[in-house]
Amino acid sequence: MADPRFFNRAGPFTLDALSALSGATLLRPEEGSRLCRDVAPLETAGPEEVSFLENRKYIEAFLGSRAGAAFVDEKSAERAPSGMALLVSKEPYRAYALAAQAFYPPTRIVARKAPSAIIDSAADVPDNCSIGPNVVIEPGARLGQRCSVGANAVIAAGVEIGDDCRIGPNVTLSHCLIGSRVVLHPGVRIGQDGFGFAPDAKAPIKVPQLGRVLIGDDVDIGANTTIDRGSGHDTIIGSGSMIDNLVQIGHNVVVGRCCILAGQVGISGSTKLDDFVMIGGQGGLAGHLHIGSGAKIAAKSGLMRDVAAGETVCGSPAVPLTEFMRQTAVLQRLAKKKDRR
Amino acid sequence: MADPRFFNRAGPFTLDALSALSGATLLRPEEGSRLCRDVAPLETAGPEEVSFLENRKYIEAFLGSRAGAAFVDEKSAERAPSGMALLVSKEPYRAYALAAQAFYPPTRIVARKAPSAIIDSAADVPDNCSIGPNVVIEPGARLGQRCSVGANAVIAAGVEIGDDCRIGPNVTLSHCLIGSRVVLHPGVRIGQDGFGFAPDAKAPIKVPQLGRVLIGDDVDIGANTTIDRGSGHDTIIGSGSMIDNLVQIGHNVVVGRCCILAGQVGISGSTKLDDFVMIGGQGGLAGHLHIGSGAKIAAKSGLMRDVAAGETVCGSPAVPLTEFMRQTAVLQRLAKKKDRR
Amino acid sequence: MADPRFFNRAGPFTLDALSALSGATLLRPEEGSRLCRDVAPLETAGPEEVSFLENRKYIEAFLGSRAGAAFVDEKSAERAPSGMALLVSKEPYRAYALAAQAFYPPTRIVARKAPSAIIDSAADVPDNCSIGPNVVIEPGARLGQRCSVGANAVIAAGVEIGDDCRIGPNVTLSHCLIGSRVVLHPGVRIGQDGFGFAPDAKAPIKVPQLGRVLIGDDVDIGANTTIDRGSGHDTIIGSGSMIDNLVQIGHNVVVGRCCILAGQVGISGSTKLDDFVMIGGQGGLAGHLHIGSGAKIAAKSGLMRDVAAGETVCGSPAVPLTEFMRQTAVLQRLAKKKDRR
Repeated sequence: MADPRFFNRAGPFTLDALSALSGATLLRPEEGSRLCRDVAPLETAGPEEVSFLENRKYIEAFLGSRAGAAFVDEKSAERAPSGMALLVSKEPYRAYALAAQAFYPPTRIVARKAPSAIIDSAADVPDNCSIGPNVVIEPGARLGQRCSVGANAVIAAGVEIGDDCRIGPNVTLSHCLIGSRVVLHPGVRIGQDGFGFAPDAKAPIKVPQLGRVLIGDDVDIGANTTIDRGSGHDTIIGSGSMIDNLVQIGHNVVVGRCCILAGQVGISGSTKLDDFVMIGGQGGLAGHLHIGSGAKIAAKSGLMRDVAAGETVCGSPAVPLTEFMRQTAVLQRLAKKKDRR
Repeated sequence: MADPRFFNRAGPFTLDALSALSGATLLRPEEGSRLCRDVAPLETAGPEEVSFLENRKYIEAFLGSRAGAAFVDEKSAERAPSGMALLVSKEPYRAYALAAQAFYPPTRIVARKAPSAIIDSAADVPDNCSIGPNVVIEPGARLGQRCSVGANAVIAAGVEIGDDCRIGPNVTLSHCLIGSRVVLHPGVRIGQDGFGFAPDAKAPIKVPQLGRVLIGDDVDIGANTTIDRGSGHDTIIGSGSMIDNLVQIGHNVVVGRCCILAGQVGISGSTKLDDFVMIGGQGGLAGHLHIGSGAKIAAKSGLMRDVAAGETVCGSPAVPLTEFMRQTAVLQRLAKKKDRR
Repeated sequence: MADPRFFNRAGPFTLDALSALSGATLLRPEEGSRLCRDVAPLETAGPEEVSFLENRKYIEAFLGSRAGAAFVDEKSAERAPSGMALLVSKEPYRAYALAAQAFYPPTRIVARKAPSAIIDSAADVPDNCSIGPNVVIEPGARLGQRCSVGANAVIAAGVEIGDDCRIGPNVTLSHCLIGSRVVLHPGVRIGQDGFGFAPDAKAPIKVPQLGRVLIGDDVDIGANTTIDRGSGHDTIIGSGSMIDNLVQIGHNVVVGRCCILAGQVGISGSTKLDDFVMIGGQGGLAGHLHIGSGAKIAAKSGLMRDVAAGETVCGSPAVPLTEFMRQTAVLQRLAKKKDRR
């Protein structure tokens, strides 16, 4: 069970209720009135808790689990321990996510303006927002309804933020317009100068960075991630995109809708991602590229060329996945051959 | 045109004035009195705005641009849309940079000490500085003339900063001496302990880090970049160097003059870069290396050896560029061969 | 000598005292009463200072050093400049570390609560702690004895911290329990949401992150490093582990005792490291892996498989070191062959 120092639990819910809210089918409908009090991992769940199995790597934990119920796919359902109620779904993790959201709904914003917050009189902050201690909000900044801003965050002049956003502590925002339901984790930096200068024999000449950062709705941006503003065009993050920690996004980059960027990804200036692009951890993209919709760029890739929609690439320099696997295989074979001589 | 919520524009300027301040030659001198009101990208520029073309990738945008004027090289000038005034330069991006600086000069520092700033009485902060809300400046710290310090920044005891520096919000400085006209973006960390300890069977033994960080003039350091202080020697960043976001610089590293380090570069302890070295994004350098003047280390490289002046290296482990290209080519060929069988 | 603006020196110490506290043997016992006033690097040390030689790369600096004494191994002792007192150890760097700790003991915590600190009345902060300006400590947070918390740090509700911890400025803590003698450098982010969501055709569905971060004793965490809390299990960092700057640690990761993670390492969710694992700079680990005790993962590796105890792996995808070297060698040979044709 989640540590009550940090989490407030709702519920309990009947299995029928969990089935309804998650879209999963209860395998034995007669168990529909059984109560679940919490979600928990397979290893620690008890008889009144619901868990899930999606990654086959954890089948052993599943077989030995004492969970009272679990979200599973059809195939795993057959192997479940006896007595475990089964909520069957084609996407058990997705169904679990919806159940977990029911048990742990987002904390309600408690309206307040901390006395130590420094909110310029020419800023627009609705009364139903929660503004933490030492927050600084400069003139012309505008927040939407029910936003929360964590302690020591700084929102610079002119920044606009939509409704129901959650800005973490120590975040720094400037030169940006942000949609609704956006979550910014601690230490996020948005809107600072892009890395733009003209080489010169004497010393680099800085190029004024005159664009903004535009962020859509329902975007999630991880701790200490940095997003530079555009140099003339804007830097754009599409709605529904999920960005992990310590990601670097250069000036003029366009990230489409519902893209997923894992930790420490770096995207160089002016590269454009269409929708539903996924980039694995530490993937790096050169500048001025175009990545088609649904493309997947594997972790650690070093990408120097455009990627077609739906393509998966891997390696550094990144090549299509099948080619990468052939390259890896041939290299292993040659290395072994050499060894045998 | 740049968003007036965030930017204040100067001008207008005649083409003659832009030619004079940028060093570009106006192709048709009779157009010299035409007025330009702004800079803008090729795609959005209108008849009263000046743009530029340097990267051939954008030739289509150039051919279709409605810009009233553009900085271009001689070759592109021939293909310009009719009616576009042409400011010809061997380095059009550099010329554009100078024009953009004229339209958007740096914001003037407005002298102030925010009432919430906590400036120790034994710190030296000239009256013409701008000290933001909640800034903390400890005893013995000294700032030069006309510095600005963003909200919630912390300047620890003894730190010295030259004239006309711009310290972003949420920056943390300790154990460092900083030159003039240095720009530190939000979340920069300078002067914390280097990563030094002696292995031990029981637990690592920490080695006191007794050096400093010395930063020259006209250095620009990107958001959330970290620069550790030296262990005995100092960590040094030479004048005119440009450092992007999320870069890690280990203890005792020496970066020469006018080096360019792109995003997420990491330089391990005690490595020395001479002047004008360039490192591409996510490049990583082992410790105790020497990189000669003007060397180029490609993005994503993993460098484990010294690099001679002027050399370009690539790959992981990094090798000279020509060798890297041969390796890549031979691997591609072999992978295809295997495929054909 | 260390800059007195930043460091307070203890001592002097006799060579006998340094021998006793470091475990090194004084080669010429008759020199035992000679005084050492400081530690210093070989290049700058003078006759009253003690230095060390461990990395052979610096043998020239050793031969030309004016240091009055040095920690060295037996072999180097033979080549020392005449007049240099020699403190012989199998681990000269370790011995030097102990000497440097004697000259530069940690600054004593001066008990204070800065008037601008905002400490909730329902937080537990012993009077012998040092709480810097603008620090925010929320209800239910508990600090141990003699902790220091740097300016503008934020300690969220319910966080527990052991004795003698040093929390740097601008650090953000939530959902975590921290041991004793832990050092957190500036900008560290601990306890924010892990990167968890279920893919969905419409938009990713966020999975509530219900675990915590548990940090053992004597852990050191570098500037701007991010450690996400678990999704259901906890994220765990074992005692004595050293983590460098800009490291990313995903949800549910378990790091064992005395592990060493160099700068910009990234560890994906649910990967488990046993004790004494070392990961070089920019190394990246996929999720759900198991890394055995004492394993070494080379800098820049991209690891996609389990690693046995004691194994060394390298490359991307990472393979055992010997295999990596064979692969590198065969590729170089083939590239040269191709060149010759």
